[in-house]
Amino acid sequence: METHFQRELGELKSSLLHMASLVEKAIYNAVQSLVEKNSELARKTFEGEDRINRMEIDIEDMCLKLLALRQPMAVDLRFITSAMKIVTDLERMGDQAVNIAQRAIPLNQEPQLKPYIDIPRMAEIAQTMVKDVLNAFVNGNSKLARSVCERDDLVDGLNDQVFRELLTYMISDPTTIARAVHLIIVSRCLERIADHATNIAEDVIFMVDALVIKHHADAKGEGK
Amino acid sequence: METHFQRELGELKSSLLHMASLVEKAIYNAVQSLVEKNSELARKTFEGEDRINRMEIDIEDMCLKLLALRQPMAVDLRFITSAMKIVTDLERMGDQAVNIAQRAIPLNQEPQLKPYIDIPRMAEIAQTMVKDVLNAFVNGNSKLARSVCERDDLVDGLNDQVFRELLTYMISDPTTIARAVHLIIVSRCLERIADHATNIAEDVIFMVDALVIKHHADAKGEGK
Repeated sequence: METHFQRELGELKSSLLHMASLVEKAIYNAVQSLVEKNSELARKTFEGEDRINRMEIDIEDMCLKLLALRQPMAVDLRFITSAMKIVTDLERMGDQAVNIAQRAIPLNQEPQLKPYIDIPRMAEIAQTMVKDVLNAFVNGNSKLARSVCERDDLVDGLNDQVFRELLTYMISDPTTIARAVHLIIVSRCLERIADHATNIAEDVIFMVDALVIKHHADAKGEGK
Repeated sequence: METHFQRELGELKSSLLHMASLVEKAIYNAVQSLVEKNSELARKTFEGEDRINRMEIDIEDMCLKLLALRQPMAVDLRFITSAMKIVTDLERMGDQAVNIAQRAIPLNQEPQLKPYIDIPRMAEIAQTMVKDVLNAFVNGNSKLARSVCERDDLVDGLNDQVFRELLTYMISDPTTIARAVHLIIVSRCLERIADHATNIAEDVIFMVDALVIKHHADAKGEGK
């Protein structure tokens, strides 16, 4: 039978997944605003920010209550304190999506500098990283967390590529500089989102593996 | 008489202040490396990173032990969970200092693009923000935390100024683009450090004021 505490942990997990889905949507809208030259989508990212910020506070409160009232030990304690850090990461990813949306609006008023190929690809990878790392966390899946870390290299590589390409544009035609700098910053925002996801992934690996090591040690101890 | 728990909290506080001082030093070395064209200082920032990362893990462990063994309530609970978030912020500020140092090395090999005035100023403000916000946290000083938030606008303003100035350089002389982009990123790293400090400051204000409001409510309740 499910205990009261288990039910509360279940609620915490689904709130985390819900918050992650809002962040994914914010990233999607911000970058799609650029791709579709649709500044209405950028505004959706701004509107969504409030909800993400509120969820951060609500989930943090939930965690503090669980810590105070249930006084969890070991694995649960680590889970709840990690959740408190993760909501901060999610909220900051939301901030990065807002930064992207802020760049999309002036960019959409100018002729498009180049076809957007790498940036939407980075966004897509970043979104799946957010989704997967939260799933890895709530399910204690370190293999999935590892795959998130691997994808970070992909995003870094694309960011470098975007940067080099835009540098060439700027050098050959100075009238492109303002737009190119906006796009360099959009690309860096996506790279930062991937970094946040990777930070969480590293925590998940650390948490799950410490548990595995502990389990092994316990099993050994029992065999003595 | 000081209890065991109070002594442990004292140790936590001094570890936090120590970690903050390492981060301040990392920022100083990274920017000074640029100012003095001394890449040796950039390498000091790289070397210092390990120690900062280790302190993050150690302080987190300290917090987890306090939560598990002392099962603190209310104010202390909030203090310890905030400390766990703050070490993450400090570690990421250290990462930003490393990013700056990484840009300093190629920049130091080229002729200096312009006199560095705003960037060292931003660095100086960012350093005092780090120092002050940690002091505000350990001493529950919301006034000091508020002054940290105010200084964030100063750093944002300088970042915009640096950006606009470098844009002019790039437009008038495309051979400056590579160096200008490095400097734009250095400036953004400093702005991000200030953002981290501001995030902490907002938490401190929230924490202290919630306490004040609670105290007022308690005092009112007693008077009934």
